[in-house]
Amino acid sequence: MAQHLVTFHLDDPALGAHAPLRSVHVPTGMLLTEAARMAGVEIAQPCGGQGRCGRCAVHLTQGEVRRRSTLRLSAEDVAAGYALACQSVVEGDVSVTVPPQEKIERRLTTDRVVAEVEVPGGYDARTLQTIQRVSVSLTPPSLDDQTDDWSRLVTALRQQLDVEEVQVSLPLLRRIGQVLRETEWDVTAIVESNPQAPTARLQLLDLRPSEPPLYGLAIDIGTTTVSCWLVDLISGKVVAQVAEYNGQIARGEDVISRIIYASKNGNSAEMQALVIGTINSLIAAAGEKAKVDLQNVFKATIAGNSTMMHLLLDIPAASIRLAPFVTAINHVPPLKAFDLGLKINPEAVIDCVPGVASYVGADITAGVLSSGLGDDERLTLFMDVGTNGEIVLGNRDWLVTCACSAGPAFEGAGVINGMRATRGAIEEVWINGETLEPNYRVIGNAKPRGICGSGLIALLSEMFLTGLLDKGGNLNSSLMIVEEDDLHFAPPEKSAGSGVSLHGQTRRIRQGEHGLEYVVAWASETWHGKDIAITHVDVDNLLRAKAAIYAGYTVLAERVGVPLESVERFLIGGSFGKYINVEKAVQIGLLPDLPWEQFQFLGNTSVKGAYRVLLNHNERERITQIASRMTYIELSADNTFYEAFTSALFLPHTDLSKFPNVANALTKT
Amino acid sequence: MAQHLVTFHLDDPALGAHAPLRSVHVPTGMLLTEAARMAGVEIAQPCGGQGRCGRCAVHLTQGEVRRRSTLRLSAEDVAAGYALACQSVVEGDVSVTVPPQEKIERRLTTDRVVAEVEVPGGYDARTLQTIQRVSVSLTPPSLDDQTDDWSRLVTALRQQLDVEEVQVSLPLLRRIGQVLRETEWDVTAIVESNPQAPTARLQLLDLRPSEPPLYGLAIDIGTTTVSCWLVDLISGKVVAQVAEYNGQIARGEDVISRIIYASKNGNSAEMQALVIGTINSLIAAAGEKAKVDLQNVFKATIAGNSTMMHLLLDIPAASIRLAPFVTAINHVPPLKAFDLGLKINPEAVIDCVPGVASYVGADITAGVLSSGLGDDERLTLFMDVGTNGEIVLGNRDWLVTCACSAGPAFEGAGVINGMRATRGAIEEVWINGETLEPNYRVIGNAKPRGICGSGLIALLSEMFLTGLLDKGGNLNSSLMIVEEDDLHFAPPEKSAGSGVSLHGQTRRIRQGEHGLEYVVAWASETWHGKDIAITHVDVDNLLRAKAAIYAGYTVLAERVGVPLESVERFLIGGSFGKYINVEKAVQIGLLPDLPWEQFQFLGNTSVKGAYRVLLNHNERERITQIASRMTYIELSADNTFYEAFTSALFLPHTDLSKFPNVANALTKT
Repeated sequence: MAQHLVTFHLDDPALGAHAPLRSVHVPTGMLLTEAARMAGVEIAQPCGGQGRCGRCAVHLTQGEVRRRSTLRLSAEDVAAGYALACQSVVEGDVSVTVPPQEKIERRLTTDRVVAEVEVPGGYDARTLQTIQRVSVSLTPPSLDDQTDDWSRLVTALRQQLDVEEVQVSLPLLRRIGQVLRETEWDVTAIVESNPQAPTARLQLLDLRPSEPPLYGLAIDIGTTTVSCWLVDLISGKVVAQVAEYNGQIARGEDVISRIIYASKNGNSAEMQALVIGTINSLIAAAGEKAKVDLQNVFKATIAGNSTMMHLLLDIPAASIRLAPFVTAINHVPPLKAFDLGLKINPEAVIDCVPGVASYVGADITAGVLSSGLGDDERLTLFMDVGTNGEIVLGNRDWLVTCACSAGPAFEGAGVINGMRATRGAIEEVWINGETLEPNYRVIGNAKPRGICGSGLIALLSEMFLTGLLDKGGNLNSSLMIVEEDDLHFAPPEKSAGSGVSLHGQTRRIRQGEHGLEYVVAWASETWHGKDIAITHVDVDNLLRAKAAIYAGYTVLAERVGVPLESVERFLIGGSFGKYINVEKAVQIGLLPDLPWEQFQFLGNTSVKGAYRVLLNHNERERITQIASRMTYIELSADNTFYEAFTSALFLPHTDLSKFPNVANALTKT
Repeated sequence: MAQHLVTFHLDDPALGAHAPLRSVHVPTGMLLTEAARMAGVEIAQPCGGQGRCGRCAVHLTQGEVRRRSTLRLSAEDVAAGYALACQSVVEGDVSVTVPPQEKIERRLTTDRVVAEVEVPGGYDARTLQTIQRVSVSLTPPSLDDQTDDWSRLVTALRQQLDVEEVQVSLPLLRRIGQVLRETEWDVTAIVESNPQAPTARLQLLDLRPSEPPLYGLAIDIGTTTVSCWLVDLISGKVVAQVAEYNGQIARGEDVISRIIYASKNGNSAEMQALVIGTINSLIAAAGEKAKVDLQNVFKATIAGNSTMMHLLLDIPAASIRLAPFVTAINHVPPLKAFDLGLKINPEAVIDCVPGVASYVGADITAGVLSSGLGDDERLTLFMDVGTNGEIVLGNRDWLVTCACSAGPAFEGAGVINGMRATRGAIEEVWINGETLEPNYRVIGNAKPRGICGSGLIALLSEMFLTGLLDKGGNLNSSLMIVEEDDLHFAPPEKSAGSGVSLHGQTRRIRQGEHGLEYVVAWASETWHGKDIAITHVDVDNLLRAKAAIYAGYTVLAERVGVPLESVERFLIGGSFGKYINVEKAVQIGLLPDLPWEQFQFLGNTSVKGAYRVLLNHNERERITQIASRMTYIELSADNTFYEAFTSALFLPHTDLSKFPNVANALTKT
């Protein structure tokens, strides 16, 4: 097949005039995005390469490509030589300029630790712990006793632990003889045992000269954020908590985009490598933070939504997005660290938490476990707000569940100045009703770098209550100061650092690149020296996210015939959940207008559930039962959900009677 | 570290003047043999790189090396620039000429098939077979039944087969969804089930659109020869039998040399690769011969001595040769084909037959199983003659076993014109007592290429009875014709093709490179146009081999207080066993002087045992019991064995009264 030379010019201001060239020879028919990957050039594909987001546009400077779709480009763009890399087929030599790519926040979060985690009640390291150390003293072999090394060890372990079967991997088997001789037949065996297995079966994980500390990992793979807890398996204590954006984000911002991207030839292995890369960097950071030798990490329990679990294992996820929406697997058999390339002890047991359905995954069963919902007699609604919104309603007698696609807006992605809840994020905002001047609080008391989920909710609510936004989410252009000599941009008076005008108008509302926007922080105040604003498009994304969630739980309650008012507890999990202001979340119509004391924010319930499962056999048993008890309800089965979603695309809702307290507050302003 | 250039000149006559140069850069301190391996140059190390055999000698043409040992080189050799590659440390640039390497017979044996193999009694494919096909018809998923693919399949399998647990590998899990959809939810599952496991546990091996044929492999890894049977698992029939020299031979001819070689840094992986290479070439040949798609091979049962099993698995074998002589493992857990890189279905189950001790391995338990020794009330002696001689004495009530190192002489290795029992091998020899002219029979009625084990035994016996050899194994030089004009070589008169002289002397005895030798076939008769002779050194090697075996079984019988005469059956396994002439084997003192009808030759009992285990769960259970019932007796514990060995280094023995029938025959001649 004909080969063509594709040359990429990286238009990165940081590189100045010396922007590097990267070239690669590719066969006819290859996509520009694939050629870029081969050349080691990063081109983000937030829609997973569907040609829907337009973010992979590149500029052709020489040669031509066949354009499959130019949906997101104007005729002028196309005429000027722009093309969507994910839709451009190479058919000859071509040179391409790649614009600066949106940098994904890769910084690890290790500074904002969830406060002391409660070690699950009844945890007893000696009886329930899944990983154990067993001291074994063997009689050395002699001419009178030529028993082989492995039988000698197994016989001792069987006697000491009362098990029938001892399993071992070939790589570990290769090391046993040497360790036994070096330790003079006095060793510590690290074993995984499960007293609830049908026969007492034991897995040998390592053989050491002395008792090592035992560590484990509880991991939550979110579509946007991966969280990882390093746990001391003896005390049950969490010794490090780290989180980072999922490395797959550049290949799709939501699960659907990722499935589409992964389903293309050869991409699934790349997707697996990306998330494993993220997990390994988190593991390394956690190990360094807590000064833990990663060879002493003998187990990892992993939760995540079903798509994330499939992509982690490189199991085809295509059936998740196609009717009738089934997963390949919900109950994954136990694996080893070497199966996935996790950089801990290669023999470490990898336990994937069981899921329920395509859109109610292991993260939700873990959430139900850690929230205690399945054991309580009170009617409880549990919701996990991440990139997807999953909802569980029930009590100890019954559990129903559904899912809706919220998008990543509340995780700070898909919002131009959005960011994760880490140092430098604006997490709370107040706006003065008269001056329209904002006041904000930043995580870590640092200069602001962006706005996280709780900050966005507060901002939306404040903008709505002060009239900066109308019910439909439109910025009020009448509040904008239009100066005669500059119709578009209204820079602040630098001395004042404010946008106040005497006429109740504000320079903070302005016409930006993406339409009208409101400036929350001026360049002079920020970490990066650039304005932090919220745009019309951001507001739209946030409204769609909150409408999807609201529609999800109201339709679910309706389906099972339970009035929302009879819900006694409203538990909220998810990475942003712990810090949001209920009043403001109700004001924008994200949460229902119920008494505040009924709401409880639980933080990342998925990683908490994984943590319980990691420590305790009984919890593993319980989560399997939870997964089988949950009845999944498909919201897309009829139009009810879509209608509820459309009605919720307002602040707080088309039907203000559903939000009496908000109506009341609006009357006051 | 300093790097040095090592250049190898291959002195191969076949390459003529254009003998290629191969160069490699190596650090200070590397052995020449390692450098050769890096450069892809083959240098045989039959003693495993101990500097004992002298066969790796090379000629230095430029530069110098540090010689660790020159034990096998004369002062003249060293002065002339010869060095042992396995003992030469590179310390500067050096050029080396590598003499032609002894070619190891790599030809597959597929032409001499063991006649019809009896399918083990009571074999019933439906109930006892280890691999099964299960047709499964699944209800396709729908919006009303969103069960995941894996649970859907497992539920069906559990119902149909009444099992508790279904295991699967991650690679197979990745394929399941696609196969189920392509077959429209109507598939054949290939499963391994073991009704005797503590809980009914089932291993999924493959998922197919329709019922494939099922094949398995029974493999015996001998130190010298690897044998492989391809078996139809439904009928139990053997569809192909192939054998080949073990690719490890160039790295040591006996187990001790191989252990020494493998114990050196990095060599163990090479040893594993060599034997797996041999097995894969056998598998390919068997598949081709029987027209079997190797993806339909779902199981392999492997037997071999303990060293071979350790090297196959790349488990350190060093403890086997060091007191107190223990193996790392006798009962190897089940493995998969992908663990070892066997080129059959990657999910195929690899079942390693259990062994007993360092020198009584899986080949012997397999031999005991296939010989039926453990079930018979008659006192039976079983012996397996390969490179090692292993002996089992007992009946259904008790079993004792021992081992002695026979060397590979009877397998045709370590004998200059020795070869395996394949086409072109002289397998029977008769010598005329007056003319001293031989007559021989060749396998396949071809021109002779060499002499196999049975031929060597016959030759030794005939030479002894005709006075060509004395009691001590010395060639009778007085029978040699010494021509005046040529003291050393006596070429035959080409027309006559005979070495007859009128004076009862013969030209067939002559002074050769390795001392006195007897010519069995003149160049004009042979396949390669070279004389086939047996040398003094060959006779020595054969005497040592037979003496070791004789000493082994007599000492074992003595230890348990059983007179050899009370043995009711004498069963002989081993690759050469099936074809030897009992009378002649008794005449050289290899077998005891017992009534001929008590001897029974069983051929390769190891591969036969592996075959039974492959087919039938009950046989697998029985072989485990056999392994645990056998009491190993260490012959090296005192001097008895050595004394018996020394007394047996004669034809037939120092004490002729132990061989009354031979004494009788000698009186007649």
